[in-house]
Parts: sequence; C-alpha cells; structure tokens
Amino acid sequence: MTTIELIKKAKGASRAIGAASTDRKNDALRKMAKALIDHTDAILAANDEDVAAASGKISDVMIDRLRLTPSRIEGMATGILDAAELPDPVGRVLATVNRPHDLKIEKVSVPLGVVAMIYESRPNVTSDAASLAIKSGNACVLRCGKEAHASARAIVEALGEGLEAAGLPKDAVVLIEDTSRESAAEMMRARGLIDLLIPRGGAGLIRSCVENAIVPCIETGTGICHIYVDRDADIDMALKIINNAKTSRPSVCNAEEVCVVHEAIAEKFIPRLEALLIDDRQEAGLVPVELRCDEASIKYAKSAVPAGERDFDTEFLDYILAVKTVSSLDEAIDHISAHSTGHSDGIVTRDTDAARRFTAGIDSAAVYVNASTRFTDGGEFGLGCEMGISTQKLHARGPMGLEAMTSYKYIITGNGNIR
Amino acid sequence: MTTIELIKKAKGASRAIGAASTDRKNDALRKMAKALIDHTDAILAANDEDVAAASGKISDVMIDRLRLTPSRIEGMATGILDAAELPDPVGRVLATVNRPHDLKIEKVSVPLGVVAMIYESRPNVTSDAASLAIKSGNACVLRCGKEAHASARAIVEALGEGLEAAGLPKDAVVLIEDTSRESAAEMMRARGLIDLLIPRGGAGLIRSCVENAIVPCIETGTGICHIYVDRDADIDMALKIINNAKTSRPSVCNAEEVCVVHEAIAEKFIPRLEALLIDDRQEAGLVPVELRCDEASIKYAKSAVPAGERDFDTEFLDYILAVKTVSSLDEAIDHISAHSTGHSDGIVTRDTDAARRFTAGIDSAAVYVNASTRFTDGGEFGLGCEMGISTQKLHARGPMGLEAMTSYKYIITGNGNIR
Repeated sequence: MTTIELIKKAKGASRAIGAASTDRKNDALRKMAKALIDHTDAILAANDEDVAAASGKISDVMIDRLRLTPSRIEGMATGILDAAELPDPVGRVLATVNRPHDLKIEKVSVPLGVVAMIYESRPNVTSDAASLAIKSGNACVLRCGKEAHASARAIVEALGEGLEAAGLPKDAVVLIEDTSRESAAEMMRARGLIDLLIPRGGAGLIRSCVENAIVPCIETGTGICHIYVDRDADIDMALKIINNAKTSRPSVCNAEEVCVVHEAIAEKFIPRLEALLIDDRQEAGLVPVELRCDEASIKYAKSAVPAGERDFDTEFLDYILAVKTVSSLDEAIDHISAHSTGHSDGIVTRDTDAARRFTAGIDSAAVYVNASTRFTDGGEFGLGCEMGISTQKLHARGPMGLEAMTSYKYIITGNGNIR
Repeated sequence: MTTIELIKKAKGASRAIGAASTDRKNDALRKMAKALIDHTDAILAANDEDVAAASGKISDVMIDRLRLTPSRIEGMATGILDAAELPDPVGRVLATVNRPHDLKIEKVSVPLGVVAMIYESRPNVTSDAASLAIKSGNACVLRCGKEAHASARAIVEALGEGLEAAGLPKDAVVLIEDTSRESAAEMMRARGLIDLLIPRGGAGLIRSCVENAIVPCIETGTGICHIYVDRDADIDMALKIINNAKTSRPSVCNAEEVCVVHEAIAEKFIPRLEALLIDDRQEAGLVPVELRCDEASIKYAKSAVPAGERDFDTEFLDYILAVKTVSSLDEAIDHISAHSTGHSDGIVTRDTDAARRFTAGIDSAAVYVNASTRFTDGGEFGLGCEMGISTQKLHARGPMGLEAMTSYKYIITGNGNIR
C-alpha cells in the first residue's frame, strides 16, 4: 500500500481511537501486550532476518540496538502494560474560568489526532510509540529504518491483533511499507493528515525534518551530552558518574560524548580518567574508551588521541569520549551552549554557587548536578514509557510522555451570551 | 540596520531579560506604559502618517484596525500594566519527582529566548506582544506591515525608553526596519536566533510560514468561524448571538463568517436573519450585512446573493456572512470540520445531547454552546492580554497568554547518582 494510503487509513481510525473510553483503550493495551508475547516466535524470526541482513553493515552497537531477545520482547510487553496503568491524559479539565451570566469556559485535554514517527533500527520503539499513541487517543503512523523493518512488521501485526480483539480498528497503528527516503518525505508533507511528526534518529534525519516538514514536528534525541568537571569536583564522584554516563550504554542519546574539565583539576583528573576508561577496562576484557583530547588535556593522557574540531560536535554513540579543558565555569557554559544539542548536560562540583550558575546558564532539556546524564528518560522522570526526548523548546521538552501526545480545546457553554 | 543584525541584537538582549527578576520586569513594564502615554503625541502623529498613506488603498475595516486614538493608546498602556500584575510565568516548579538516593528532579519553567512576530496593520499588537514577551523573560522581534510601520516605530521607541529606565536593554524589543517580504523570509530562516515565530495575519502569510519557516512557528489567527443553528435552537437566542458574532467587530478573527442552519428551521430562521442583518441595519443607518446563501437557503432571503464555492473558505473580515443549510447535526459537523480553520465554532441549540456531540466532534481551539464566538480572547479567557490565537494543536491552542511564551527544563540534583 502506498504511504499516503496508509496515512489515510490511520487518519480514518483516529476518530474511533479518539472517542474510545479509558477502559476500552486499557483493554486494548492489555490485549496488545498479550498478542506481543503470543507472537514471540514470529517476532524473533523476523528479527533474525533483520540482524542477518544488517550484519557487517552497521556497527556492533547498532546491532545491539537492533537485536531482540525473549526478555526484550517481555520488556516491550511490560512497557505496554505500564501504559495501561497510567492515568488517561485525555478528557482532563485543565482549567475552568467561571464568568458572569452563566458563561462557563473549560479547557479540556484532547488527543492530537494522528501521531507519526520516523525512527531507525530499534524495534522496541514500535511498541513503545504505539502504546503511548493508543493510550493518548491517537492513531499512529510508524516508519522504521529498513534494518528493522521485518521486526517492526511482525510487532505491528501482533499489536493490530490486540487492537481488534478489543474492538478498536487495527489501522490505528500502521507501519509504512516503503523504507526509501521518499516515504519519509511524503510523511513530512502530509498536512491535514498528520498532526505531529516525531523524527527519532541521526542528525541528518532531524535536519531534513526541520527543513522540509510542513506538518508539525518535534525534534528528538540527538544527544551531544556534556559533563563538566568543575575545579571543586569530588574526583571519585566525577569518575563514577562519567564511567556510567559513557560506558553503561554508549549507543543511547543520553550517553556522555564530551567531558569538559576545569584546567585547575586536569592534571589530577585526566590520568585517573584514562586509567578508568582505558587501562581498567582493558584489564577487565572490556572495550576501552577512546579519549580524544584537546591540546591542554592530551599531555596528561598517554594513550589519548588528539581531538579534531569536529569531535566536539559529534554524537559518537560509541566508546569514544572527547575531552576539552576550560579555564573557568563561564568558559564551560559558553562551550556547552555552543556545542550541546540541548539534550542533557551536567556539572560535577561541591560548589553550590557554581551548580546554581550552571543550571541557570545551560539551556538544555535536562541539566544535572552531581548525577549521570543517563537518567534522562521517561521512566526515570516518572512519565511511564516515553515517545522520544525532545530537544526543542516548543510543546514538549525532554522525555515526552503521554501529556506530550495531547492538545486541548476550550469548551464554552453559555445561555445566549454575547460580548 | 539589516534584519539579521536586529535579530542578533534581540538575541544578545535575551540573556539579560531571561535573567531579570520579577520585580525588575514589572518595573520595566510600568515604565513602558508610562513612556507610551508620554509619547502619545508622537505616536498619534506617526499614526496619522500611516492612515493618510493607507487611505483608499485598504478597506474601511482595515483602516479601523490601523487607526489609533488617545483612548486606544491608553488601552495599550493599560494592557501593559495588566501584564505587570499577572504572575511571573518563569521559574515556576511545574513538577517534582523525588527518587531514592538523594536524586531530585525538578521541572522548572523557563523563557523561550527570542520570540518573533510578523503582523499586519494593527499597531496595538506592538505593545501587546512586547509586554507579554518582557513579562515572560523573552526578547522580542517585531515585524509589522508597511501600513503600520510608522506607528509601530513610534511605539517601540517609547517602549525602549521604558526598558532603559528600568535598567534593561532596549534591544529586548526590536522592530524590523525592512517591510518587504524579504525580511519575513529572513526571520523564517533565522534558526538558532529565533526560538518562536508567530505569524499574525492573512492566510497567505500563515501558509508562507508553514511552508518556509525552519524556526519553530505557531500559526495564529485565521478565523473562518461557524455558528450552527440547530433544529432545536431558540431562534431569538440564535439571532442575538449571530448579530453579535458577525457585526460587533467584523474585522477580527473571532467574528463569524459562516452560518450553518439546519434545514428544518431554515424557513423560520432565514427571513428573520435577513430582517435583522439587512433591513433593521439599513433602517438604523448601519452597514447592512451581505448574505451569501446556498441554494437551499436563498429562497428564504429575498435580498441575499448566491454563495460561490469559495465563500465557505473565505475569512471575509467584513460585513459578509455565508449561509449553508444542512440536513443533520452530523452534516454540520462534517461541513465545519472540512472548512473551519480550527479557531472558534459554535452551536445554538436547546438539545444537550446535540451540544455534547458538537463539542466532542468539532476539533477547534474554542467550541461554543449558546454563546458568541467573539469571546475567544486572552482577556475573556482569563489570561491577561494575549500574543495571538493559535489555530494549531502543538504547544498552545487558542488564545496564547504568558505560559505559551515559556518552555521548561528539568534540573536534576544528585549526590553521585548513576543509573
């Protein structure tokens, strides 16, 4: 089926989903979760196809993103069940204005309509996005990268079975069949059909959406995350945080890419950073982190490589960390302001005034003091699962949960009132 | 000065405005209001120039939008003082998530940064926009149509004096000097400098922004507003509401443009509508309303003209009302869904179930039951003054007050927490 035909199917299903009661939507979610588990074998078989086709063509960390296991499928089903437990974001009275002469003004949350997502090789995004869309009364158009397409198709088939079992149209979740760039371009121009387009992927996709989309669009996910080690940092704490932020899952957007270090602490800090991320990891048989150091820091790290200018504007998503020294907190804030994607940036310091200046000065979705950037996540922030992490300031910023999938309208009831 | 130079000046001033305390911002607003009054003569002189240059080139209702009087300037100053009285939308803790091990997550409202507006011939928008921007900690880039440029320049000069008197940079409010289309196009592409662009104007401007803007943009203001007179309507009430919605100020976006009438009531209703809007107004020496009727309704209105297809997709902003008959509530909802701009649409009915179906089925910013669409307004909705009326669903819908000029960020404070 063509891309526009599929989008129109979702649009057609959006009325039924938008009008469905909370109970109906939750019933559908439970049945979607069950169908996902029931289809485990088919999903794993499809995923094996995807992984086999992608092997050797994408990096090991990307293969890790792509691969499903029974426990990852269980995790996806649990995510759907979690969505069923969350409060319904639709139909909330957000504000009431009572005015003279019987005029009552209510601001009520409503679904957006059709939410579309363009994503790459993470099959679990398929069920995360679908479950949040259904819970928030929206139909959902999904377009994944070709690497994950067979997996996504098997997942969407299972989810559709769950929707139908609950008496809702299976077209409320559609997967675009065309995996060429053309289908993404068609989605970007589907004005009047798509109410929100969420691109989740690399910088190229995001830029393409920003420049070409005429449907409403939210940028997500590109994370050039910084951790600034202040002159007053507790070095042990800084090492623990950076080890977590860089190595616990380097392929995700909240992983650290750049370490900014105050020059006053560099001589003590950098050798210990190198020992931790390179020597200790090698001894333990783990992939060592490649340190790409600026001129002032490389003299303290015997096995680092010199950083090129682009290394401070690259989302590595790999075991690579750029290191930059600064002579002041202000210089750190200026560097991060110029190079951050506005996702997650942190400071490690014992100086509460420096922490306050940093959190005020850094204009990012999440600003950390003495904690790992890895916490930027819908679950960790108490939103249930998430639809992506917005790096823009309009509508939703940071992890987008159910509320980000709604709009509102004013319902005004009078008795012949005129102005 | 070039458009980009002016935008950069605003960007430079945005830090100081964003960091200003509530007291400082309110002091600036009071001084801006005072300066506006002090400059009344200069503003009126500039406005006279604008009106003289525009006379004969734009319609009477547009001249009415353009013209300033001492009392309209006082109204603008009062609007600024009202903004000073409103709660500061910045620095509010919107949510707190407390997690184990000392990790505290706060969601805090922050200014957007630089808010830009492209508007046409209403000089009062200049001070409305500037005061809401300053109150919400944003710098403001204004570009008005050439018809109102002299007036806007005189107003911005006064506002800048007020800002400086309060110790804030006058560049926090800049007026683009170039009134050609090129400057609008430059604003649409000023990525990294403008955080929100609000086009307020005709359908052509809005479409141009939607298609060309790569800065975040909110559509506003185009209002093809419908009032549906149900078969169970109280005809007297319907006439009173439509008279108000159509004739109290036809040049504004919440004025009614289309009357949808149930065929079962048309024979009784249309002749009375015609008597009210044409005969009574003529007798009273007022401009009569031109009724443009569809085939089924024209037989009941002796002096109506036949509606062309485009009449149901036109924002007249004038003493013109299109009339359409339908055979059911569902047909009314379908017609309005297909032709409304999503601004304000209403039903007049005594049937509460019809009212409920209408408010659920119409996907517009404001949906009315038995009241005039003219109430769609920031002041009427309790928001203080307004930055425009959003007809889109992302970020802000309907009248945009101070909150719509803010974003938020998460500030996470830990004690070495890792995930």
